[in-house]
Amino acid sequence: MERLTGDLLPNETDQKILRRLKRIEGQVRGIQKMVEDKRYCVDILTQIAAVRAALDKVGLAVLEKHTHGCVQKAIKSGEGDAIIDELMDVINLFIK
Amino acid sequence: MERLTGDLLPNETDQKILRRLKRIEGQVRGIQKMVEDKRYCVDILTQIAAVRAALDKVGLAVLEKHTHGCVQKAIKSGEGDAIIDELMDVINLFIK
Amino acid sequence: MERLTGDLLPNETDQKILRRLKRIEGQVRGIQKMVEDKRYCVDILTQIAAVRAALDKVGLAVLEKHTHGCVQKAIKSGEGDAIIDELMDVINLFIK
Amino acid sequence: MERLTGDLLPNETDQKILRRLKRIEGQVRGIQKMVEDKRYCVDILTQIAAVRAALDKVGLAVLEKHTHGCVQKAIKSGEGDAIIDELMDVINLFIK
Repeated sequence: MERLTGDLLPNETDQKILRRLKRIEGQVRGIQKMVEDKRYCVDILTQIAAVRAALDKVGLAVLEKHTHGCVQKAIKSGEGDAIIDELMDVINLFIK
Repeated sequence: MERLTGDLLPNETDQKILRRLKRIEGQVRGIQKMVEDKRYCVDILTQIAAVRAALDKVGLAVLEKHTHGCVQKAIKSGEGDAIIDELMDVINLFIK
Repeated sequence: MERLTGDLLPNETDQKILRRLKRIEGQVRGIQKMVEDKRYCVDILTQIAAVRAALDKVGLAVLEKHTHGCVQKAIKSGEGDAIIDELMDVINLFIK
Repeated sequence: MERLTGDLLPNETDQKILRRLKRIEGQVRGIQKMVEDKRYCVDILTQIAAVRAALDKVGLAVLEKHTHGCVQKAIKSGEGDAIIDELMDVINLFIK
């Protein structure tokens, strides 16, 4: 199955995903600062949980882009089963 | 309940946590590059899941440090119930 | 969007899902017995985590059946976007 | 470390946990019926996610009971480290 790159969809989706990733990068640096400053562990844990939730949102945005784009295109061209199996494997990484 | 800072424990734990956070920061930048390069979405998702797993490990390391340190100290000084309730609230952020 | 029932796929998938659900039902009763018998909490928690993992597997099996069946059929008949949005909403229930 | 049973705490907690487990058992049977009736997969998935959330709540209730009970008692009697390590292992089952 020829791997389709993500350029099937308007760039706006990518920009949104990139902005979120930039914010997550900043949050991770913020947590590093909290650890260096010996901040209270529960406050650090709360920040880690927030980054995790933000990361899940990015994951869902990429999943949505992929399903609307590559998956839909592959199904319409008769290659649905292989790409759906691949989709399930990657969803499994997030659910387990 | 007087908030105890994390300095009850040897710095080695913090160093380990900081190294992991540095690695996660690098991984997040790597994912940004993959999005900019229009890499295949499933590969991007696999990286996001890896960062999520690494983040969970950091969370558990901080949770362990907190429980062995602040929670244990508070229980020994008779302030167990309040800090345990606080512990459950933060664990809930990771489980739900 | 006309809601497609699950009969697009061979019954074997449903039988497998039903067997797993029966086993989960038994496991839940087993946990009730452990609570009644005042068994050690960590042992009870280990069983709860096992049921959770089994439930996730059932969820993935149903998700797979749905994506190979209804989602694929809707995409081929030009109704892909609506059913994909619906798919993302339900995946979100499992990821968050 | 002598395994402490859960009878350190009033039975009310156990009753609440048992009621929730009974409800979960009924929900699982309800999902079986939905599969047998070939109900729409997304509706089945929504129910599975609801049972998962209910299971997490039971897990947290047992975790809370254990931490307030056995963990607190073990820490006060100088056996904190071993039971905290055990606590982290079981929390890890729920987070990963």
